[in-house]
Amino acid sequence: MTEAVAIKKLSGPKLNFKNGTIDLAHGSGGRAMAQLIDQLFLVAFNNEWLNQKNDQAAFSVSSGRMVIATDAHVISPLFFPGGDIGSLSVHGTINDIAMSGAKPLYLSASFILEEGFPLADLQKLVTSMAHAAKQANVAIITGDTKVVERGKGDGVFITTTGIGMVPEGVHISGNQAKPGDHVIVSGYVGDHGVAIMSHRNNLQFQTTIQSDTASLHDLVACMIHAAPNIHCLRDPTRGGLATTLNEFALQSQVGFMIDERKIPIRTEVASACELLGLDALYVANEGKCVAICDPSDTEKLLAAMMSHPLGLHADVIGEVIEDHRHFVQLKTKIGGMRIVDWLAGEQLPRIC
Amino acid sequence: MTEAVAIKKLSGPKLNFKNGTIDLAHGSGGRAMAQLIDQLFLVAFNNEWLNQKNDQAAFSVSSGRMVIATDAHVISPLFFPGGDIGSLSVHGTINDIAMSGAKPLYLSASFILEEGFPLADLQKLVTSMAHAAKQANVAIITGDTKVVERGKGDGVFITTTGIGMVPEGVHISGNQAKPGDHVIVSGYVGDHGVAIMSHRNNLQFQTTIQSDTASLHDLVACMIHAAPNIHCLRDPTRGGLATTLNEFALQSQVGFMIDERKIPIRTEVASACELLGLDALYVANEGKCVAICDPSDTEKLLAAMMSHPLGLHADVIGEVIEDHRHFVQLKTKIGGMRIVDWLAGEQLPRIC
Repeated sequence: MTEAVAIKKLSGPKLNFKNGTIDLAHGSGGRAMAQLIDQLFLVAFNNEWLNQKNDQAAFSVSSGRMVIATDAHVISPLFFPGGDIGSLSVHGTINDIAMSGAKPLYLSASFILEEGFPLADLQKLVTSMAHAAKQANVAIITGDTKVVERGKGDGVFITTTGIGMVPEGVHISGNQAKPGDHVIVSGYVGDHGVAIMSHRNNLQFQTTIQSDTASLHDLVACMIHAAPNIHCLRDPTRGGLATTLNEFALQSQVGFMIDERKIPIRTEVASACELLGLDALYVANEGKCVAICDPSDTEKLLAAMMSHPLGLHADVIGEVIEDHRHFVQLKTKIGGMRIVDWLAGEQLPRIC
Repeated sequence: MTEAVAIKKLSGPKLNFKNGTIDLAHGSGGRAMAQLIDQLFLVAFNNEWLNQKNDQAAFSVSSGRMVIATDAHVISPLFFPGGDIGSLSVHGTINDIAMSGAKPLYLSASFILEEGFPLADLQKLVTSMAHAAKQANVAIITGDTKVVERGKGDGVFITTTGIGMVPEGVHISGNQAKPGDHVIVSGYVGDHGVAIMSHRNNLQFQTTIQSDTASLHDLVACMIHAAPNIHCLRDPTRGGLATTLNEFALQSQVGFMIDERKIPIRTEVASACELLGLDALYVANEGKCVAICDPSDTEKLLAAMMSHPLGLHADVIGEVIEDHRHFVQLKTKIGGMRIVDWLAGEQLPRIC
C-alpha cells in the first residue's frame, strides 16, 4: 500500500504509519477510529462495498446454494517465512469456502488490536491481506476494529468470514466417503506448521522452510471441472492430515488405509519434525487439500491437480475402507501397520 | 443449555463444565477441540447446518440484495447488568444487519479463548448466545475456536458475522439524509455504556442500570412495514448518538439540528453520567436505533415504533439541515447552542 493515502474530509491529521502505535482511541468509534478506517482500511481494501461506509455491506446474489465459513487467526509470530497473519487470514477462510466446491465471493474482516501495536506492522499486515484478497479476486467488503489494553491481547487477532456460491450439481461434504474411494493429497504436507515451529525455535536448515499458505479455490475449480463428483474435500490445517482423515472417517462412518510411502513430505520438513519431535501427519498445512473420490475419477482428478501450480505434487495416498471403528490405519515405510489416532493433547499452539 | 449433553462417539469423557478450564488443547484441532464442539457448541446451537460438521455451512438463497456485517466483541466485564458478551455478540451483529432493513438469516461465531478460562463461564455465555439467537429466529450455523496462552487474551473474545436479505424496494443507507428530514431515536440513550461503567466503578444507584442490549430486527421490520422509504437507519453503539449523527452528516453531506430536550435519557443514566464525567450523547447503546425519514413519513413511522416494545419511548429529536461543514448542532436545555463534535479521544474502552 502507498503512503500517499487519500485523506478524507473528517480524518484530519495523517496517521503516523512510521512510528505511531495503536491506542485505545482507535477502537472508540470516534475520530481516531475514523482516521484508521479512512487512512488504512479503505485505502488498502478499496472497493465499492466498503466505500458504502455503512455498518454492513450490501450486494446482489443469484439464487442457489451458498456457503459461509469463519476463522479466527491468532498465529504467533505475526510474520513468518512464507507469509503473515494478514495473508493467512484471507487464505484460511477462502480455503474453507473452497472446500465445499464453492466460488468465494466476499470476505469480512474483524481486527482485535492490542494497545501499543505498531501502526507500521498493522499497515504491513493489512497490505498483505489486501494483496491476498486481490490475488484471489475476492473483495473484503465489511469489517470491524476493536482495541484492547496492553497485556489483554497479543498484537493483532484477525477473524475473517467468507461467503461463496456452490456450482450447481456439486455436493461435496465430509460424509460422502465410500469404501473403495481413493484418497488424494494435493502436495507436500507439514510445511506450514514446521515453518512456524522452526522459526519459533530459531532452527536453521540449509533452506528456510516456508509456509505453504495459499488460496486453493482456483485449484479446486480445476478439480471440479475435471471431476464434478468429488466426494469429500478438506484443507488439513490444525491437526494436519491425520485429523482431517479422522474427521472424514467419523463423518462418513468409514475407515482409511493410508500408505506412508505415498505421503509427500519434503526432506527438510521430515528432518525438522525429527528435531522438533513432531509427527508430520499432525502438522498444520495452509495450502493443501485432501480429496476423496470414486476410483473412476482418480486419473482425471489427479491429472487436473498436477497441471495446476498448487497441485504439482498431488498423489493418491490410500483408500477408504469399511471399518465400524472408524480407524485411520497407516502402512508404515518399514512395512508395519499403525493406527493414526486423533491428536490427544496440544501439539502446536497458535499455529493459525 | 442442559448439562445432560449428548456425548458423541468421538468425544470420549465428558467435559467438566463445573470445575474445568480451557487449555491449549481445546484449540488444537484434536480430540479436546472435538469434545468442546460436540459437548458445548453443537448442543447449544443445535441446528441442521452446524450438524453438517464441515468447515463451512451450506444453505439455499433466493436472488436479491444481501447484506453482510461483522463485529468483534471484547467487552469487559463479560457479564454485566442486562446481558453478557454472549447475547451482546448476537444482538450486535443482528442489529448491524437489521439497520440495512434486511431480515437477518444466519450467523457465524468465532471464539478466541484464553487458557484457564472457566468452562462453566463459557457454557453460560454460549447458552446465552444460543438463547439470543433463538429469540431472534436466527441460526448460528458455523464457527471457529482458537485458544491463546494465559495473558495473551482476556477470557473470551467473540466475533460474529451475519448475513441477511433486504426486502425489495428498501434502500436504506447512511448517505440518504436530506435537509428537512426528521431524526427519530427509538428510546432512551446511554443505558448500555452507563450500565457497564457503573458496574466497573461499583457505583450503586437506587435501581441497577441495565444494558439495553436487544435484537432490533423485529422493530425494524415494523418500521419498514409502516414506512418503506426510511432514508437512514443506524444503531448508535460505540461513540453513541453523537457519533452516529456525525457519520450521517458526513455520508449525506448535511448538518443536523438536534433538540436536547427531546432526547430521551433516563434520570438515573443522566445522574450516573454526571458522576462518571460522561456525556450521554457519546455513550454506547446496544438496543436503540436512529432513523431519518421524510417528514411525510414521521407520523406513521413513530406510531409503528411506539407500538413495539423496543420503541415505546421513540421520539423525534431534531432535523436534517443544510450545512456544508456537516456539523451536528444541539439546542441545549437552557436555550443555548453547541456543536456536538466527533469524539476526540477514548471515552469508554471495551464497551462492546
